Parts: sequence; C-alpha cells; structure tokens
Amino acid sequence: MVVTDSSSSCCFFRRFFLLLVLGCADGGRLLVVPQDGSHWLSMRLLVDRLAQKGHHIVLAIPEANFLFKDIDNYTVKTYSSSYSKDVLENHMRRMSQELFVDRILTQKIKFLYESALNGTQLILTTCKDFLQNSTLIRELEKEGFDAMLTDSVFPCGAIVAEHLSIPSVSFMRGTIFGMDQIASLTPSPPSYVPRMFTVYTDNMSFGQRVNNFLIHSLEHIVCHIFYYPYAQLASDFLKKEVNALSLFSRTSIWLMRYDFVFEFPRPVMPNVIFIGGINCVNRKPLPQEFEKLINRSDEHGFVVFSFGSMVSEMPMNIAMDIAEALRYIPQQVFWRYTGKTPPNLGDNTHLVKWLPQNDLLAHPKARAFITHAGSHGIYEGICNAVPMVMLPLLGDQMDNAIRIESRGAGLTLSVLNLIPEDLSNAVMAVIENPSYKENIQRLSSLHLDRPINPLDLAVHWVEFVMRHKGAPHLRPAAHDLNWIQYHSLDVFGFLLTVLITTLFISLKCCICVCRCCCKRNSKQKRKTKSE
Amino acid sequence: MVVTDSSSSCCFFRRFFLLLVLGCADGGRLLVVPQDGSHWLSMRLLVDRLAQKGHHIVLAIPEANFLFKDIDNYTVKTYSSSYSKDVLENHMRRMSQELFVDRILTQKIKFLYESALNGTQLILTTCKDFLQNSTLIRELEKEGFDAMLTDSVFPCGAIVAEHLSIPSVSFMRGTIFGMDQIASLTPSPPSYVPRMFTVYTDNMSFGQRVNNFLIHSLEHIVCHIFYYPYAQLASDFLKKEVNALSLFSRTSIWLMRYDFVFEFPRPVMPNVIFIGGINCVNRKPLPQEFEKLINRSDEHGFVVFSFGSMVSEMPMNIAMDIAEALRYIPQQVFWRYTGKTPPNLGDNTHLVKWLPQNDLLAHPKARAFITHAGSHGIYEGICNAVPMVMLPLLGDQMDNAIRIESRGAGLTLSVLNLIPEDLSNAVMAVIENPSYKENIQRLSSLHLDRPINPLDLAVHWVEFVMRHKGAPHLRPAAHDLNWIQYHSLDVFGFLLTVLITTLFISLKCCICVCRCCCKRNSKQKRKTKSE
Repeated sequence: MVVTDSSSSCCFFRRFFLLLVLGCADGGRLLVVPQDGSHWLSMRLLVDRLAQKGHHIVLAIPEANFLFKDIDNYTVKTYSSSYSKDVLENHMRRMSQELFVDRILTQKIKFLYESALNGTQLILTTCKDFLQNSTLIRELEKEGFDAMLTDSVFPCGAIVAEHLSIPSVSFMRGTIFGMDQIASLTPSPPSYVPRMFTVYTDNMSFGQRVNNFLIHSLEHIVCHIFYYPYAQLASDFLKKEVNALSLFSRTSIWLMRYDFVFEFPRPVMPNVIFIGGINCVNRKPLPQEFEKLINRSDEHGFVVFSFGSMVSEMPMNIAMDIAEALRYIPQQVFWRYTGKTPPNLGDNTHLVKWLPQNDLLAHPKARAFITHAGSHGIYEGICNAVPMVMLPLLGDQMDNAIRIESRGAGLTLSVLNLIPEDLSNAVMAVIENPSYKENIQRLSSLHLDRPINPLDLAVHWVEFVMRHKGAPHLRPAAHDLNWIQYHSLDVFGFLLTVLITTLFISLKCCICVCRCCCKRNSKQKRKTKSE
Repeated sequence: MVVTDSSSSCCFFRRFFLLLVLGCADGGRLLVVPQDGSHWLSMRLLVDRLAQKGHHIVLAIPEANFLFKDIDNYTVKTYSSSYSKDVLENHMRRMSQELFVDRILTQKIKFLYESALNGTQLILTTCKDFLQNSTLIRELEKEGFDAMLTDSVFPCGAIVAEHLSIPSVSFMRGTIFGMDQIASLTPSPPSYVPRMFTVYTDNMSFGQRVNNFLIHSLEHIVCHIFYYPYAQLASDFLKKEVNALSLFSRTSIWLMRYDFVFEFPRPVMPNVIFIGGINCVNRKPLPQEFEKLINRSDEHGFVVFSFGSMVSEMPMNIAMDIAEALRYIPQQVFWRYTGKTPPNLGDNTHLVKWLPQNDLLAHPKARAFITHAGSHGIYEGICNAVPMVMLPLLGDQMDNAIRIESRGAGLTLSVLNLIPEDLSNAVMAVIENPSYKENIQRLSSLHLDRPINPLDLAVHWVEFVMRHKGAPHLRPAAHDLNWIQYHSLDVFGFLLTVLITTLFISLKCCICVCRCCCKRNSKQKRKTKSE
C-alpha cells in the first residue's frame, strides 16, 4: 500500500506567490478524482488553473497510469494498483492494434465486448484499489475538502464524495447509455435527440426514429446493468444500499465539454454548464523544429495528422497506404506516429513522436486536419477553423465524425478499407473546395463568440460549488419524485379512472332511464290495449 | 399618421464619442419593439447599454403610452394611436382601483375577465396601429436592421421581424399559458414544473399535480385561442397563413428575466439565456432628500414600501389601514404613494411620489421591503438581501410571493383583508426573526455569484444575433417535427402494431399447432380404438 505526497515546501512559496499575484485569497480545498487517458488532458487545464488561483488541490490517482505526468503544482496522492503498468499498456496496445484489423461483424462484436469488459474491469479494479486503501481514505477524511472535481464516466469519484459528504462537480463530455442525462433528469425526446453510438443526426428518418426510440427505452436498464458492480462496491464501502445512478444524481454541477456548433441542440438542465472547446485555451508558441519545417512550406501550407494521445501506431500495411496517400499532396504533413517508418514515406511527410496539435492547427498555414475524430481534436479543429478528414476508430468517434460531416465541415472515411486515393482525394477536397473552409469558419466564429471563455466558466463553477458547498438552488425537485410520479402516470391513471367511472355511471343512468321509459311505455300500451 | 424622429445631429457626435471611448466600432442596426409599462423599465437598461456601445437603435412605440419618457440617446419612431392617452390612463386607473375592491368570486372573475379583455384589446389595437402605419413600415424596411429586440408577451414584434426577415431576440420574464415554453419547445414536466397562476411550488401534492397536469394539457389550446386575433392580423399583414406560436418559435434568443434562486429549476433550451436581476445593475447615488431622512433614522433603519411603477394610489380605507400598521413600527418608512394623505399617517412614514427603489434597498440601513411582489421588485429585494412582506395584487405576483415565501425569505398577506396588526407583525417578523435575513442573504449570495453580470450577458447575446444574423446552431431540430412525431406517437403506434401483430400471429400459430396435435392425437386414438 503506497501513498505518496509529491507536494513540497517549495510549492508552498509558489502558491503563496501566486496568491499574491492573482489576488485570490479565498483558496478552497478541492479533491480531484480524474480518469486516466485523454480525458485527463482537458481536465488538467482546469485543475492547473485552479491551482494557480491558490486553491489547495489534492489529486488522487492510481500508481499504474498513463498520462498523470509532470504534475508539480499541486498535491498528488497515489494509491497502489493491484495490476502493473505493463498490464495496462498491454491492454491498450492490444486494443489499438485491433482497431486496425478488419474482421467480420460477429468477430468485431466479440472483440469489442471483450475489450470493453477488460477495460471496465481494469477501471473497476482501480476503483477497488482506491476504496480499499484505508490509509489514503483516512487522509482524505482529515483534509476537510470543500468539494470534489471528478470525471463521471465511472462513479468512483461519486462514491468517495458521498463518503466524505462533499458536493461534487462532474467534468466530462458525455457517457455511454446517456447516464449523464438520466442522472441529471434531462428530458431527451428520442424524436430528435440521437443516442450515442447510433451515428444519427438530429434529423432522423422514421426507421432511425424507431431505432433511437428503442435504444432510448433500454438505456435506463442497460445503465443499471453496466454500473451494477459499482453499486455493489459502493454499498459495501458506504455501508448503505445505493446504486450508481443515485450517486451520480447528487452531482452539483455537470461541466460538459459540449458546444452546440458541434452537438445537436437539445434540452438541458440548469446545473449543466457547457465548456466545449476548453482544450483550445491551451495555446503556446510552436517549438522551433515545427516552426522551421513550416517556414519551409510554400503557399500550400501543411496538414496535421494524429490519431490522438492514445493511438500512435498502426499495422504497416495501413501505415503504407496512408503514406502513399499523403506523398502526392502538395502540402507538408505532420504525422504523429511512433511505429516503424513506412518505406514509401514521401518527402513532404514528417513523422513526429508528439505534436503540439492545437498550436499547429492555429497556424495560418494549417490547411487540413486528419483526425480519428476524438472530441478534443474535433474542438481544436473547430476553434482554429481547419476542415477535417476523419478516420474514426472507436467509441463516440463515429458520432463525432457524423456531426462534423453533417455540417459540411469535413469528410469521413473508414480506416479499415482505406484506399490511398480516397484519402488523398478527401484531403484535397476539404482543402480545395471552399465550402468546407467556409463551413468550418462559420462554426468557428459561432463557437468562439462567447460571453466568457470555457476555462474561466469552468473555474467559476468549481469555485461556486466550493464557496456555497454545492448548488442546491439548481437541483430540480424532480429528484424527489419516483418514476411514476415524474411521468405523471399516477395522475394520468387517476384521470382515466375518473373518466371511465363517469362514463360508466352516465351510461348506466342512461340505460336505467331508457329502461324506465320503455317499461312505462309498454305498461301504458298494455293498459291501452286492455282498455 | 405621425412618425416622429427624435434623433438629432448632436446625438451623432455623442455616439461617435462613445464609439471612441468604448472602442466598439462594430455597431449593428437594431430595431426595438418594446411593451409599455414596467416591462420597459428593465428592457430599457439593455437598450441604453446597446446605444452606449455605438449600435444604431430605432425604438418603435405608440404615441399614446405611459413610460417611454426621456429617451434621447437613440432614435424613437412613434406611430399614431387610434385611442387617446386618456383612454389608456382611465383603463389603468380603473384597474388599479379595482385591485383593492373585495368582491365575491364570481364578480372577481367577471372583473378580471373584462379588464384582461380590455387590456389585450388595447394592445391589439396598438399592434394594428403599428402594422397599418405604412409610412413607418416602409421606413423600417429601408433601415436594413440586423436584428430585432422585442418583448414577446404579445407578438407584434415577431410579426414585424417576420415581415422584415430579421432575426429576433425576445426579452421577457415569462408568459401567460406558458407560451415561451411552447414556442421554444422546452419540455416542462407538469409533475414538478408548476404552471403560472397556480400558486404551487415545485413540491406539489397529488391533488396539485392533477390540477397542474390539467392546466398544462390545456395550455396549447388556450394559447392558440388567446393569440388567435394576432394570427389573423399577422396573416393579413404578411399575406400568408401563420399563427402566433409559429412566429414566436422563430425567436433566435430568449432573454428570460429568470434566476433559479427565485424560479424553480426546470429544463431549459440552449437558446434561452437567463438574465434575472438585470434591473439591479442600475445603481445610482441616493438623492439628497432620501439621504437626509436616512441619516436621521436610528439603528432601527428603514422600510421601503412600493406597489411598483403602475400602482401608486389606493382607496382611503386601505391606505389608512396601512398607515395604522406602519405608524407603530420603530423603522422609518418610505412609501411610494400619490393618493390623498391618510389622516392617521405616522411621523415615521414618509410619502413620496417616486422612490429610487433599488438604491434604497441597497442601503445598509434597509431592513424590510413591503412590495406587491412584481418580479422587478422581488429581484431588487434578492440582490440587496432585504427580507420582504408581500401584498400581491394581480398577474404573476401571487406566484412570485409564494416562491419567496417557500424559500423562507418573506411573508405574504392579502391586501384585501388587511388587518393593520397583521401587517405590522409581518414587518416586525421579517426584521426581527433572523431566519428571514439569513435566507434572503443566502439567496442573494447565490444570485450575485455569477460568471458574468446579467446586463453584459444580455448585451452579448443581442450583439451575437446581430453579428451572426441569428443563432441557428441553437435551434433544435424539433421545430421541424409535427406534434405526433415530436412525441414519437407514430413510432409508438408502429411498435404497438408490430407487437400486437406478432402476438396475434404467434397465437394463431400456437392454436394451429395445438389443433393439428389434437387432431393427430384424436386420429391416433380413433385408429388405436378401431384396431
């Protein structure tokens, strides 16, 4: 069991200095429970800014991790992992290799199911490691935090927030099975709000609406099944019966990496704050090696190509197809790729182990962006008004691609059946056909025209929750209703009963009256006859 | 037919100077179609600020009006009214007198119906005057406006915006029959979203939920009936078949004077922006006469009493009851009242024809606020953390009062059965019982803790609509669906048909199989028997 405290005395002076400089003497105490991987990259911007503002921040992370690196401006508490970093890396490597293998549908589903199971099992194990680390939990109990900032794709943060009785802020883009919408009680009419992974737009055909309706109807059940292991874990840890959705529903503020130039407009709740494009705020001067190469490029400019922070290798045949596609375009290409150099690599194509994506896209000579359509990359494409060629790999990337394509700001190709000519044609199309540039510029100008930048907005709401110990005034009373009450089914049932009863009594009365009349008539007739 | 242009050459230089000072060289062209009365008071703050920012603003108002006074920093175009100002004043006088008359329920309903009919008839006539003023309409056509800012309680602005093909921004608090929610396609579950005029909170009993459900179900129809005369007017004017709801639904941005410390949290749409408390931004130093009187008050401070901008008189018996209630409280009282002085007025009670309400409430010696619970006053009470005694008169004021009372920040009394002792007890209760002050301070601190002040936010969104010719990216695709599609009733019907057909076929098959089996069995039995 390892608990490491990386904060040092020098940090105190830096924080004190920052306090003086920024004039923020009302430092709060914030516990951060992040999610490893690309999610951390944008959350980090917020945590860094909060630390700069003088808040006392404690980051709780597993020992075996990918991207929690170079953190020195706040306290990091690591808990030992019951699996090694190798296990994690092997899982990711296997997964990223499999992404490029073209299989038949049944095999693909089997692989996706297995890798999802494997991944969620690893995350569940990480959560168990955290909760069972009693030394760390005791330390956190003593800290007297004002609030928690957590990534709510998985509910580990929510469980700890409940244990510590502190309000929480969720930082995320969206979840599988619409958990965020279910937990925040956001109405999501399936007639125009496409569900995740459907690859539908908000303008659906009848058949698509039928599918969307069915998926929407099942989400609640699937959500419960998916998070069931966490419900058990939470119930054991908190020593009371809880389920993951009820824990998520206590979230004070949902910071969603959403913006409606990219997402389809839909109803929202007052405690959902939109900070889409927060990652674009991170802007630095370009490193010299990139600056030099860009200066060498002519009026054709350059293309940025990356499959994101988690996928930097691919099978040689695909790498060669891509290299073939790129070698004949007149642009210089910066390709983030850590694999073996394809033998057919063109002179215009520069392989780099890492690239400052947002800063490169911000350069006036950036002409196109070849991306796997991860949400971070898409927002950077939008912020910098660079049209995109999208090669989605997994998860929500296909949905992201369809959103950009439906706005006429990019083209989508499948990486599995990639023909070099198709890729080069797509890149040339988004560069040379002015409609793509015009559309992405329109989206960009709408996206950037905001009353407050998304990072400042996120900082405000985390500080708000720290200051006021939550945001109870934004919590809808719907949370106190059960499912039947919320949907007014009891009211509907009551009114239907009243209506049927009234109709029944009226009918009975009519029949009685009719019978009486008939009897009287027949009696009278009989009387008349007898007379 | 009169069209007056009050802009003068001196205004040009002032605007030019303001442009230089504020550095806003991107002045847009904005047409403003406001609503007379207290609504204008908060809208004016926004229009003034937009004019200060160098936008070319044209205000279109009727000649016979109440509160469109002292406007000299933008162009005002008045159109002649087919009724005199006396008619308007008589209507308002009669209405404000009737507010204080205690009648039996049937008479009250009759009066309310008649005065509402009268009022809406006057507003409809105003709209007709505007649309039939072809000189003014031609002038507006030539202006080339970028957008319209309008108060959408009535759809005159929406009709003109449609005629001029310009996007519109609605500035309002809320409408009768939930028009804003219907037009913006905001889901409003009746299980926890109380309808206007019901005086319910968001925590309703079963009976209240039944009523709320019934009212909610009728809103759509009532809305159509209420706005029917405008639909006819608009269809004639626009020379195409339209209805008021479809015109309202084209609103680009809804600027709602809402804040969830006061309103109950409910779903919202992305193009609805909350600017509740915008009127609190208007802060000036207190006039000397008030300053002097306040300085004379001891540690007990003072009480502010106003029935708003539209009601400043009342019958003598009620005025005397109020004077009686106030004369024995230890606070000084500032009472906006233009009627005959009640003979029993206490020395501590100062009658004033007008009072700087927000500035008085902001004074540290302000102890309580006696108000008719109009939304402007309520927000000023919240902004300045002054507990309230509410005497609601009409419209949404009873709803407002219940919202504040349910938060423990004030007490509600009926002005019709007012016993002086009750009023003085209520005033002393909100002053001396610390819970009222604590609750209003809590609401105030939540309300004021925003990332951007509501006036700046409103300015941003009006400018946004001017810059981008609307906000199409915030318009949900639901507007393109009909009622059946929106509620997925066609999908539901289809799935039900499939289910019933499948069940029917399965049942038929089962019966067939059973029959075959039975026949075979009986044949076999017969065979066996015969053998």
